[in-house]
Amino acid sequence: MEKIGFIGIGIMGAPMAGHLLDAGYEVFTAVNRTPPSNELTSKGILVLDSRKAVAEAADIIITIVPDTPQVDEVLFGEGGVAEGLSAGKLVIDMSSISPIETKVFADKIKALGCGYLDAPVSGGEVGAKAASLTIMVGGSDEDFARATPVFEKMGQNVTLVGGTGVGQTTKVANQIIVALTIEAIGEAMVFATKAGADPEKVRAALMGGLASSKILEVHGERMYKRTFDPGFRIELHQKDLNLALQGAKSLGVSLPNTATTQELFNVCVANGGAAWDHSAIVRALEIMSNHEVA
Amino acid sequence: MEKIGFIGIGIMGAPMAGHLLDAGYEVFTAVNRTPPSNELTSKGILVLDSRKAVAEAADIIITIVPDTPQVDEVLFGEGGVAEGLSAGKLVIDMSSISPIETKVFADKIKALGCGYLDAPVSGGEVGAKAASLTIMVGGSDEDFARATPVFEKMGQNVTLVGGTGVGQTTKVANQIIVALTIEAIGEAMVFATKAGADPEKVRAALMGGLASSKILEVHGERMYKRTFDPGFRIELHQKDLNLALQGAKSLGVSLPNTATTQELFNVCVANGGAAWDHSAIVRALEIMSNHEVA
Repeated sequence: MEKIGFIGIGIMGAPMAGHLLDAGYEVFTAVNRTPPSNELTSKGILVLDSRKAVAEAADIIITIVPDTPQVDEVLFGEGGVAEGLSAGKLVIDMSSISPIETKVFADKIKALGCGYLDAPVSGGEVGAKAASLTIMVGGSDEDFARATPVFEKMGQNVTLVGGTGVGQTTKVANQIIVALTIEAIGEAMVFATKAGADPEKVRAALMGGLASSKILEVHGERMYKRTFDPGFRIELHQKDLNLALQGAKSLGVSLPNTATTQELFNVCVANGGAAWDHSAIVRALEIMSNHEVA
Repeated sequence: MEKIGFIGIGIMGAPMAGHLLDAGYEVFTAVNRTPPSNELTSKGILVLDSRKAVAEAADIIITIVPDTPQVDEVLFGEGGVAEGLSAGKLVIDMSSISPIETKVFADKIKALGCGYLDAPVSGGEVGAKAASLTIMVGGSDEDFARATPVFEKMGQNVTLVGGTGVGQTTKVANQIIVALTIEAIGEAMVFATKAGADPEKVRAALMGGLASSKILEVHGERMYKRTFDPGFRIELHQKDLNLALQGAKSLGVSLPNTATTQELFNVCVANGGAAWDHSAIVRALEIMSNHEVA
């Protein structure tokens, strides 16, 4: 069994690393401000004194950290992963970051004789705990085949979508669809309730038809139950739509509703909602329409 | 068994009336430019010489016609349904029309001592043929209970969502969600393919996660298979979003992405697409981005 280095044992990373330990993998992480949970410690995670040491000890190094600058830091900062790599190792970045920067990072890792996969996930904390994550992978067939047994311990729907960066591109596409679908349900709910409809009955009626989706089921319910605790924080979805809009500019494509939806997230943040669940985008529409879904 | 009048035996109405005949109902319709299909004739539909005569002969009168002015005409035009009504009959409008005009129509019918339900449907020609329509009903509990055995011959998900007009409001909400979700998938597909991803693989990867929906499954596939034959014509979806935007103005609510999406339908029409399937909204984004999903 290959030895696994795991950098980023936060809300997502901790249960993911736990599944690898459960499956019998030897897993290393680097010492950090936050020590491993008691659960990870009891499962036998090994804490080394630097990311460089983790890369030296492991065959496959997984990173899952908040954003592009943090990936840059853990890979290429002082005492980082790159310093400990040698030819034949494989780096898998499971963070959700810029597809464009991903290609830069991958080129630097490949220049060391190592493989690189971008493999962002969808499914959140619930999916991480249940090992049911969707994993969208960009990279070579060979690296993907090598990583597949590891991915299958953490996720259920694992797809090689294309070359380097395409995993991140697919994750951005996912986040566009999720944000705009939640927003669509928000518009429908504000319209229907202002016209006198009961939002619970509207949702129930629509669940049988073409408008049905996981998002109508889950986020539609949050809108009238007013349960806006994350879930997935608006400030994180803003980061993802920023990747979409920056990417759109550099690729030369037009994303009109993504742009408006980002503005509606800005309305939420302006009203204290940076940490609200993304279903609370309906509150932006409510504020604009001077009407609450109920 | 109550006798049924059925006004509007077109693409949707013909199979719906057929199911009622199959269930043993006596069904009347009015003579029209287009005579009943051979199938409806062989099932025993009875053709009377006016809508007034249909209303006289039937206990329950169902209308399903293209738009608000046609409902006005068949109900209140010369020789129309209203002229043949007497107290105790029930009018059910299954067209998709204005929630606001619906209340006016209902008031006039109720003044004759009759019941009125607005009961628009979702599910299209496929759902009409399979008797699997979603039926969104506005009106009284009493009228709904009376109509339920009839609805159950034509649909599977039948919901009384509220009082008069709320069925139409719910249908408009449905059409907002459907249009904006298709548009969202269009933005994701244009973005991902311009960045080098294979749209078929992107759709497959996203189908397992939070972005999954019937629309991603069906319309997402149409986008890369380039199958833009209706389906549901853009000019019809424009009619529905017009109801949403007019309603939003009179209700005083803001629907920013509905407005933009209507503009994208306008881009399609400007490029010859009035009769394209609504999944072809991706073509508006493609034209704007000078890039085709493939």
